[in-house]
Amino acid sequence: MTHVLGANQYGKSETRVVRVYRDTARHAIRDLNVSTSLRGDFEAAHTRGDQAKVLPTDSQKNTAFAYAKLHGVSSPEDYALALGRRLLDAAPAASAAQIRVEEYAWDRIPVTGPEGPVGHDHSFVRRGTETRTGVVTVEGRGDGQRAWVVSGLQDLVVLKSTGSEFHGFLKDEYTTLPETHDRVMATSLTARWRHYGSAPTADADRATSWDTSYEDVKRILLATFAGHHSLALQQTLHAMGSAVLDAHPEIAEIRFSAPNKHHFVVDLSPFGIENDGEVFVAADRPYGLIEATITREDASDPGPAWVGLPGFC
Amino acid sequence: MTHVLGANQYGKSETRVVRVYRDTARHAIRDLNVSTSLRGDFEAAHTRGDQAKVLPTDSQKNTAFAYAKLHGVSSPEDYALALGRRLLDAAPAASAAQIRVEEYAWDRIPVTGPEGPVGHDHSFVRRGTETRTGVVTVEGRGDGQRAWVVSGLQDLVVLKSTGSEFHGFLKDEYTTLPETHDRVMATSLTARWRHYGSAPTADADRATSWDTSYEDVKRILLATFAGHHSLALQQTLHAMGSAVLDAHPEIAEIRFSAPNKHHFVVDLSPFGIENDGEVFVAADRPYGLIEATITREDASDPGPAWVGLPGFC
Amino acid sequence: MTHVLGANQYGKSETRVVRVYRDTARHAIRDLNVSTSLRGDFEAAHTRGDQAKVLPTDSQKNTAFAYAKLHGVSSPEDYALALGRRLLDAAPAASAAQIRVEEYAWDRIPVTGPEGPVGHDHSFVRRGTETRTGVVTVEGRGDGQRAWVVSGLQDLVVLKSTGSEFHGFLKDEYTTLPETHDRVMATSLTARWRHYGSAPTADADRATSWDTSYEDVKRILLATFAGHHSLALQQTLHAMGSAVLDAHPEIAEIRFSAPNKHHFVVDLSPFGIENDGEVFVAADRPYGLIEATITREDASDPGPAWVGLPGFC
Amino acid sequence: MTHVLGANQYGKSETRVVRVYRDTARHAIRDLNVSTSLRGDFEAAHTRGDQAKVLPTDSQKNTAFAYAKLHGVSSPEDYALALGRRLLDAAPAASAAQIRVEEYAWDRIPVTGPEGPVGHDHSFVRRGTETRTGVVTVEGRGDGQRAWVVSGLQDLVVLKSTGSEFHGFLKDEYTTLPETHDRVMATSLTARWRHYGSAPTADADRATSWDTSYEDVKRILLATFAGHHSLALQQTLHAMGSAVLDAHPEIAEIRFSAPNKHHFVVDLSPFGIENDGEVFVAADRPYGLIEATITREDASDPGPAWVGLPGFC
Repeated sequence: MTHVLGANQYGKSETRVVRVYRDTARHAIRDLNVSTSLRGDFEAAHTRGDQAKVLPTDSQKNTAFAYAKLHGVSSPEDYALALGRRLLDAAPAASAAQIRVEEYAWDRIPVTGPEGPVGHDHSFVRRGTETRTGVVTVEGRGDGQRAWVVSGLQDLVVLKSTGSEFHGFLKDEYTTLPETHDRVMATSLTARWRHYGSAPTADADRATSWDTSYEDVKRILLATFAGHHSLALQQTLHAMGSAVLDAHPEIAEIRFSAPNKHHFVVDLSPFGIENDGEVFVAADRPYGLIEATITREDASDPGPAWVGLPGFC
Repeated sequence: MTHVLGANQYGKSETRVVRVYRDTARHAIRDLNVSTSLRGDFEAAHTRGDQAKVLPTDSQKNTAFAYAKLHGVSSPEDYALALGRRLLDAAPAASAAQIRVEEYAWDRIPVTGPEGPVGHDHSFVRRGTETRTGVVTVEGRGDGQRAWVVSGLQDLVVLKSTGSEFHGFLKDEYTTLPETHDRVMATSLTARWRHYGSAPTADADRATSWDTSYEDVKRILLATFAGHHSLALQQTLHAMGSAVLDAHPEIAEIRFSAPNKHHFVVDLSPFGIENDGEVFVAADRPYGLIEATITREDASDPGPAWVGLPGFC
Repeated sequence: MTHVLGANQYGKSETRVVRVYRDTARHAIRDLNVSTSLRGDFEAAHTRGDQAKVLPTDSQKNTAFAYAKLHGVSSPEDYALALGRRLLDAAPAASAAQIRVEEYAWDRIPVTGPEGPVGHDHSFVRRGTETRTGVVTVEGRGDGQRAWVVSGLQDLVVLKSTGSEFHGFLKDEYTTLPETHDRVMATSLTARWRHYGSAPTADADRATSWDTSYEDVKRILLATFAGHHSLALQQTLHAMGSAVLDAHPEIAEIRFSAPNKHHFVVDLSPFGIENDGEVFVAADRPYGLIEATITREDASDPGPAWVGLPGFC
Repeated sequence: MTHVLGANQYGKSETRVVRVYRDTARHAIRDLNVSTSLRGDFEAAHTRGDQAKVLPTDSQKNTAFAYAKLHGVSSPEDYALALGRRLLDAAPAASAAQIRVEEYAWDRIPVTGPEGPVGHDHSFVRRGTETRTGVVTVEGRGDGQRAWVVSGLQDLVVLKSTGSEFHGFLKDEYTTLPETHDRVMATSLTARWRHYGSAPTADADRATSWDTSYEDVKRILLATFAGHHSLALQQTLHAMGSAVLDAHPEIAEIRFSAPNKHHFVVDLSPFGIENDGEVFVAADRPYGLIEATITREDASDPGPAWVGLPGFC
């Protein structure tokens, strides 16, 4: 019974790269958490401890910082593409590089200028709870090199205080849940969407940037969540994903992982108090967890785009 | 060597109370994490396990939910005052009750109505990283009852990419830090401010609400952070606190706990790359920690207002 | 451009089931965090909000509690197999069920009995930092039903203060890391190993239990980590996995995810102090991350055993 | 309404100092998280940004590392005393220094030697969930210098599956909790105890070390928890503290903060299943929180020993 090395990868996780643009007095900032990994012919390191083909994770970290200056960070996706290509060049034994980026958003601190409210030139406050994500996988070399881009967000916490029902479900002998025609629905959304190619649009007439694409997808997700009358969290996610695919032909598929953050109506009747959907307890655990993919029928081959990404079936 | 019971308190921590106002189609939401504690003559429970004077923490939790309906949540402070007074009434052995509230803010999801962008009636998205806090301590009964209110916020993450210096410091044989005239300054701010009384203003002419008071203090903190040219984080905090006291005569003192979230310039010179304050590593640990109080010379007696609140010297 | 539902699953996550065995005065305890998920024909819930085939996650939770009594918890794996089979029976539209269990270990509190030190009958203290894990996937019905069992552990924090080298690696223009022949090596290990079948041994002569199998694998992992002179974390993991496969013919493959928790030698030379590998700073981020699989050449088909498990490439 | 600087302090938090003793082939390790803070005449830094009296937090960090070698780490308390005294010397404007240390425990990995099971010479595994703590405050200079030592532990998770009752409590109109004569009692204990002086024993005949003192106090806490039939968590804590004071005359007082980690009996009766205290749900929030002090009647003045320590009333 011989045993062999199976799938493997290595890299540097969670390099905290902060890039300040200070060419003018009005600074801009991109705040990233960067993880890199390489796959390929690294068997000698595993079986003999031979590092001759291994580009140290420390060098990968150095490259992440150097490229924040050399290439710049116009968007997480663009930066990750450049970084992934560089690491493949630097490590000849690697067949693929995956770059995972989380971006933390900042708003300019509002101040009052001579002509009214403006954002401060160089003072910022962290925005929102959600984190923007980008995962780039680059494979191969030269003309055969391909790249996959998965954009996304995580920890987008949303809630609707009505417009959500849950009934008509399957019942077995362990079912005690009452049916409801009006409940609170809340989730901390993770969504990831795969682009057809390695540019933010598939359509030359719709020239756009990764940043504007991201903002528009987020806007659609929020607006659909708000406007959709829900019979199931699954259905709401399906509507959200469908709306994104309808509006963005450059996106091949979208995946969701959505914990159902239960808000239970508190029984106040022992105290003679009526509670008509006004007082809830927000529960921690357990929570329902819904994972779903909405994809075009003719979506391109995902290849390695989703390998190793947690939270999806 | 006899030993005796010293300071003690008990209560229910982190009751997650969500209050929805749905009197009209345009809902409102207050999302709270409520902790209650009682102090007083509870020695029998400690020495003999005798519970006759002990109002169970479970009852305290029930009351927190019931009061979200009976009294309502017009603000964390107002709700906490009502809850604290109720618990003192319900537990005759208690001499004081402390109510600690964290509030999570929600924004209406932006949607487009017939006349342009509006907020959705009943769909919300979590706002910002910071949490609003309120701590109320009620002591005594009847005419002698007194209350202290400490409002605040935590985890307000701010950064300025210039306008901060650090030099002229004391040097010993373990000092290697270079002086700097331009650095990134960032912190995750906790601030708490004590009101003179148990109403949001000491001045009948400045009638205000706890909510508007909170928003204005937060605005002043941010604007002062943004506008202040800093020679030390201590100095920036002092300016922030002074500005709050100048604008809000109803506030007796303000306390800060501010980790100095170091952003170190990455040395790219080994790679022949100049880094003129453009690429930083955001460090996790260790971090400087500054704690400071700014108080009026004639501030009222804080009494038990600060007892048990972490993060302040 | 039609879009369709892709891969999806749903279930209840993190149900905290604590099972006490109290048939005698000497109690036993199994402390579990249970997550269940179902895959299959649930499209109507997604597209139309039709719940007729959906067994509520609340019912899944109830079943998790009921089965802790009905079936009992002789081991995480055995309990998960029973629960998975039950959920498949209860939800006819499901084609597969995956049960993920984390188990927290407890030791009896040591006390002194009439004949010396013993463990207390019903008082316990939490053991160690690591969590035992078990993931069971059950697919199909009747005679065609199959089950896969992946046992494991996570957060096993280990360190060796010598016996680890790192040199001879690939160098590019961003490489500044010095080579070392003696470093601290530390990791917080996640390991998961897949059994051939749905019993803890493939070999009738080696009758064993899931619990004894787990303890022996953990022992081998620790002993190999301790005894292996390391030229690379990859090599150490490979040796650990090989040792497990050598000793346990019932295991088909083992996968690791191992952050390289860097301990950097602190430069004390500016202070005239020699530091010959005695004072280290334990860094938080970034960290190297090594993921690897060691598998038998003739390992059985993993089927859906690894679907959705994070942390592995 | 002039405002002035109130209480303030500054320092470096969470320096992760790892000290390896490698004088022989059998290494030893002390793994610390060190926070330092200084109080005193630092007003100029706050009001004018003048740093002339400010020893940078970066220098405090350097000193923490240097002293791990120069003074060594025979115990957290001994190391903290040396570090506190040094920082007071280095910063003439400081009137007091407080050093807070958390220590993570490691066990030798068990291996089999020629004469049976032994611990490995240089390979370790993290022990337990609890963290040992030590807080030292040094005040003054020369002959008048005083020091206070507070030892402790946090996150010691204990549970008893019987031997705990809760009844006879005060009832109001919001009380729904049933009385019980047999419940699960569990907590994640934080305890801190103050020594009379700056040596681990007040009694020359009982010469001991900080390490043996710590181990014995922990042993007493566990054994008393295990052996005590509880009518209230308060009572159990009181018994635990009293037992420590009885056995350790060098300890002046002990303080506890103990969340009541509720384990609720799951109602299985809807499914026709009897649950006689066998299946529980471990709840996250809310939780009862008990804080208590047990002190000698003639305990010495605590001075600044407890200033700024969270979790105690």
